[in-house]
Amino acid sequence: MTADAPPTAALIVIGNEILSGRTQDANVTFIAGRLSAMGIPLREVRVVPDEAAAIVEAVNTLRARATYVFTTGGIGPTHDDITAASIAAAFGRPLVRHPEAEALMREAYGSDITEVRLRMASMPEGAALIDNPASGAPGFRVENVFVLAGVPSIMRAMFESLAPDLTGGPPILSRAVTATVRESEVAEALAAIQARWPAVDLGSYPWARGGQIGTTLVARGTDAAVLEAVVTDLVAMIDGRGADATIQEGGG
Amino acid sequence: MTADAPPTAALIVIGNEILSGRTQDANVTFIAGRLSAMGIPLREVRVVPDEAAAIVEAVNTLRARATYVFTTGGIGPTHDDITAASIAAAFGRPLVRHPEAEALMREAYGSDITEVRLRMASMPEGAALIDNPASGAPGFRVENVFVLAGVPSIMRAMFESLAPDLTGGPPILSRAVTATVRESEVAEALAAIQARWPAVDLGSYPWARGGQIGTTLVARGTDAAVLEAVVTDLVAMIDGRGADATIQEGGG
Repeated sequence: MTADAPPTAALIVIGNEILSGRTQDANVTFIAGRLSAMGIPLREVRVVPDEAAAIVEAVNTLRARATYVFTTGGIGPTHDDITAASIAAAFGRPLVRHPEAEALMREAYGSDITEVRLRMASMPEGAALIDNPASGAPGFRVENVFVLAGVPSIMRAMFESLAPDLTGGPPILSRAVTATVRESEVAEALAAIQARWPAVDLGSYPWARGGQIGTTLVARGTDAAVLEAVVTDLVAMIDGRGADATIQEGGG
Repeated sequence: MTADAPPTAALIVIGNEILSGRTQDANVTFIAGRLSAMGIPLREVRVVPDEAAAIVEAVNTLRARATYVFTTGGIGPTHDDITAASIAAAFGRPLVRHPEAEALMREAYGSDITEVRLRMASMPEGAALIDNPASGAPGFRVENVFVLAGVPSIMRAMFESLAPDLTGGPPILSRAVTATVRESEVAEALAAIQARWPAVDLGSYPWARGGQIGTTLVARGTDAAVLEAVVTDLVAMIDGRGADATIQEGGG
């Protein structure tokens, strides 16, 4: 990555409950959308089991590749919460009780503090805390890796705490055109529009609802004027086929 | 992997729309749940962008590691559908028009067949077709890699077509106990129960709803009698704390 390259991100979802199909992940969409709005494209997501070797491999691969790496899950007080120890192993740092985290937790829990709860203050040596306005135990950061809770409401609160520390690029804007055409009818025209506007990422997504079939065309990029021109091209192309086009705006 | 090792799976979700946060993935949970029921644990999921290099890397890493690899997305007729070409590149095979796929598509589309639609018959040389009862274009398999549509209804139909070709292990069963206790109150007792039953994967998931805080304890394994014993231990432990426990059954 050169100094001028835009920032990128990767996300590691740690959790057997996702891989078993028991739980539908709710964090990828939130983090992806927030990062897009900050101009930090999410380049890859990995869902890995609650196993140290799998977590270490994913962390070490992705932290060398992306500007920022986020992890969700596995930072609670129970035996299956092995994220902190695994991050320590990935960085070759000892797992220690973080003095500031301990102080925060003792303040939050008062006389209810226990050794089990203080397990959540164990972090890789030198970790920086991520404030957790939603509950007692903080997340933490080691170099470019941000370690967040898996519970969506807590993860979101932690993300908002760390967001000011991220250096973003130009926000990634998106415009969508929903059209009553089949993908195969517009594939060639779409390819031509994509070729005309190479700085835009033009995606095509078929849909079927209420007996009708259609295609949503999504243009993403950082230049609002260029996106506007792409939308104009898309609408003209769809109008030219006698089909209906509906324009949507969005930051995702 | 030895000959006696249980089968495993990995999943590659191909799609910029997931990484941008625009679309919530709906395929991981379905595939994970179906595979669990077939005794094929899903070991890893990767979400990668619509870029050949990223797809090739994920396919080649995971096909060497898992018994079965599934991909979703990117097999339509538009310029951003690059999965077939990327799978061909991963296997070092040419991308060719598959005669049987072409025949199926000509039959399905009749006089509406076009060169653009026939783009969906381009597959790595030697690919085996995966029947698509939901729409015209089939998926395909190369060695241990199964290439499926991204649209959930079509993906599911394709999965059911290929499921009989998978060699499963003992179905992975699960039992869940929902308890009105905090994780930190039961962490030590849970660790002891996990240690007593090492063949079971015991997970702990905090929840908060309607002003109440609690923990769902999930036991997963292949032996129903052992799971029953674990549930008995869990309920006794929660009863012993004067809290409420509700037992759920499930295959996920």
